[in-house]
Amino acid sequence: MRYQLYYWTGIQGRGEFVRLALEDSGTDYLDVAREQGDAVMMSFLRGTQPGARPFAPPFLRAGRQVIAQTANILAFLAPRHGLVPASAASQCYALQLQLTISDIVAEVHDTHHPVSGELYYAQQRAEARKRAAAFRTQRMPKYLGYFEQIVASNDGRHALGRRHSYVDLSLFQLMAGLTYAFPGAMKRLKRRLPHLHALGERVAARPRLAAYLASERRLPFNENGIFRHYTELDG
Amino acid sequence: MRYQLYYWTGIQGRGEFVRLALEDSGTDYLDVAREQGDAVMMSFLRGTQPGARPFAPPFLRAGRQVIAQTANILAFLAPRHGLVPASAASQCYALQLQLTISDIVAEVHDTHHPVSGELYYAQQRAEARKRAAAFRTQRMPKYLGYFEQIVASNDGRHALGRRHSYVDLSLFQLMAGLTYAFPGAMKRLKRRLPHLHALGERVAARPRLAAYLASERRLPFNENGIFRHYTELDG
Repeated sequence: MRYQLYYWTGIQGRGEFVRLALEDSGTDYLDVAREQGDAVMMSFLRGTQPGARPFAPPFLRAGRQVIAQTANILAFLAPRHGLVPASAASQCYALQLQLTISDIVAEVHDTHHPVSGELYYAQQRAEARKRAAAFRTQRMPKYLGYFEQIVASNDGRHALGRRHSYVDLSLFQLMAGLTYAFPGAMKRLKRRLPHLHALGERVAARPRLAAYLASERRLPFNENGIFRHYTELDG
Repeated sequence: MRYQLYYWTGIQGRGEFVRLALEDSGTDYLDVAREQGDAVMMSFLRGTQPGARPFAPPFLRAGRQVIAQTANILAFLAPRHGLVPASAASQCYALQLQLTISDIVAEVHDTHHPVSGELYYAQQRAEARKRAAAFRTQRMPKYLGYFEQIVASNDGRHALGRRHSYVDLSLFQLMAGLTYAFPGAMKRLKRRLPHLHALGERVAARPRLAAYLASERRLPFNENGIFRHYTELDG
């Protein structure tokens, strides 16, 4: 069975977390909207397709099953493709960590859209400056300090257990995105996050992932996505 | 085994979604911080307790397992206490819906704290007015319209399958919280959400839940929680 991934074209966004799991595990998938355009997702979002109706992309079609919500998709894929230990307790813990990554990702989005996703960044720039300052100085250090401790108090190399998991992939993506969006703030934090930086480098060097990152399938970060670089938001 | 629930005292907050599942299923639990004070949670948050380290409350102790993230706790409890169908596909779909409820709950929080959780509401009132307006007019109708359709296109009475689940409990809580926080906006939407309103009433009338809601264990909504009523944010 070939999975069908549905996500907005033109950005990495939340779809990228799913893409990394598929690419790293060498799993066959079709990136549907990139092949056929964003409009192909609309019938799913309107609920006129069979299967679970998603509120928003990304969603995954696995045979007749439709699965939405990034962390939920990852929790579905991971045990099938060697990206999480087999025990129920490990999978529960992995999902806990992934959901905490989802939380910081949502907060990253709101640094440039603190008022409304329906308005342009330029229409909420003043509010964005305030929100981004709070994010850079309070939330980002708190979240990353937490994940640093998670890795350090585990085996120093992985988020959970003694082997690679989808949580490591997501931590790589989080670090990459934050480094793109907030290079100054991340540089100032670097000394405090040795395990996270080393983990990110190891993940990026995994053969299938390195090939993916060098391919055209890996879109560059840009100012339409979740991780955006605006100099004035980096303090 | 008696579960131990850890959540901030004084508010319903995210802990209430877990409490509703425990109360509705008649499951024995200790509401630890309410018995012993918020300070009892700190060693878990600092990572000096055994078991998975939570980023934030709520978290649940089940024997030696510590489980954090509201939706993750519910996904853990539900199959053990008759609050979700047995099939993996149903549990995946339930989690998808619950995570979408988590998303709107986070957006509700940000209507009164659009800049920073570290500042008081009064320090971000101007930004809150803008964010709340976008929430009331765009996000809330979009989310609730989605859930209305989910119930209507299912059996008209439940979020999934033909029986009660934890998602129904969470939809009840969402409707109750939004009605408290945004009575005007919810009144204007009422005609468009007949299934959600009926579902909320049925859930509230379930014997164990009705007893809980009438008890002192059910704290009233208040202006320290997630669902807050500020007249100026209701438009």
